[in-house]
Amino acid sequence: MKKPVEVCLSPLSLGLYSLSGKIVVVVDIFRASATIITALANGATKIKAVSTVEEALDFQKRGYLAAGERGGRKVEGFDLGNSPLDCTPNVVGQKPVVLTTTNGTRSINASMSAKAVAVGSFLNISALVHYLKSSECPILILCAGWKDFVNLEDTMFAGALIEELGDDCIADSDSSKLALELYRKHRNDILSFLRDSDHARRLIRIGYEKDLAYCLSRDSFPINAMVIDGEIVAVG
Amino acid sequence: MKKPVEVCLSPLSLGLYSLSGKIVVVVDIFRASATIITALANGATKIKAVSTVEEALDFQKRGYLAAGERGGRKVEGFDLGNSPLDCTPNVVGQKPVVLTTTNGTRSINASMSAKAVAVGSFLNISALVHYLKSSECPILILCAGWKDFVNLEDTMFAGALIEELGDDCIADSDSSKLALELYRKHRNDILSFLRDSDHARRLIRIGYEKDLAYCLSRDSFPINAMVIDGEIVAVG
Repeated sequence: MKKPVEVCLSPLSLGLYSLSGKIVVVVDIFRASATIITALANGATKIKAVSTVEEALDFQKRGYLAAGERGGRKVEGFDLGNSPLDCTPNVVGQKPVVLTTTNGTRSINASMSAKAVAVGSFLNISALVHYLKSSECPILILCAGWKDFVNLEDTMFAGALIEELGDDCIADSDSSKLALELYRKHRNDILSFLRDSDHARRLIRIGYEKDLAYCLSRDSFPINAMVIDGEIVAVG
Repeated sequence: MKKPVEVCLSPLSLGLYSLSGKIVVVVDIFRASATIITALANGATKIKAVSTVEEALDFQKRGYLAAGERGGRKVEGFDLGNSPLDCTPNVVGQKPVVLTTTNGTRSINASMSAKAVAVGSFLNISALVHYLKSSECPILILCAGWKDFVNLEDTMFAGALIEELGDDCIADSDSSKLALELYRKHRNDILSFLRDSDHARRLIRIGYEKDLAYCLSRDSFPINAMVIDGEIVAVG
């Protein structure tokens, strides 16, 4: 059966969509999605997404590794920033992580009333597509954006996901088409096109250029990251 | 001097942008923009944009022609709907018009704190570009969207306007690029691409297919439509 797929281009617009009965795929390409997938693939036991630095520090006291950023930079007192490259097995293996970021973790928490919440990234896109195809639930792709602005990288990924879902989905709303058109135009030069996006330029300026290519690499990890009992865990 | 140009993809996001000192170009391609430009080009003396049917009926009592739609259809008791094709010289000539639409008139009224407010449509794009190039003010293109959703046709026009402004402007934010990429991909098949957009399908369904090509025709009228003293008038 063909499933409807919608694209919400910014968390500011989330109130326009019903979450009931849907799988929400939260997308924060630069970089929370990649950090979550990498940490779980490299052995982190679970990831708690929180909205504030204070909450993260509370979890840190209870044994979680505190990870996250404000303005792209690691928060003072945290164990890790929001760079997926820091989430090596010897750092995150067998440990719970608490993560707070400017956009991604807020979007995850805003989606909790959905039937299921998955994290979408290029690093696990094939595993994600396999999971989405195996379910009968309609899908809402939620682009985390940047401080409520629409951004290019999350819109690009929404388009890539719709393309990969192919005939299994119906994605004929305007925002879905906008995402698909962007992806189809730049599928062969994603990194060079997105290097010039607002947030990529911000990350390059503060020394995280290497993260860009990493966040856009495909299918590094055959796992899904799903919210279960309020925390994100690896599935599959 | 190069002027910054920003694109606000939906009125829901307008609060993210400063209006101070800027020219706001309000864009509602299907169909308020075209209706306003056509009515003024065909002799309407001025157009008052209002948000509610009740306000429009009040102005009607004071001698204005009442025009507008709800759900795309003409409102009961109004003289006109929101079809630009109805705004012929014998209907609108020498008369003031009051207009209320689902999206466009709300966006015009939400922009009133800007330095200037212009209406943007394909019908007057060259005149608009000439005016924008002659000013030194930064520009905010406000896409009226559909009930706060981002739509394809207004985003397409934002891209067309940025393309026409060319080297006179700096439009390097993500939303500007998204608009420009869409326009560049479909500049040669705008009508066939937009025929399948959400609102075009709605208009076709209720009998307004002819309006689509009309709203996308270029440079039918060499005028600008500017808000002056709270009403929209023809300039140039």
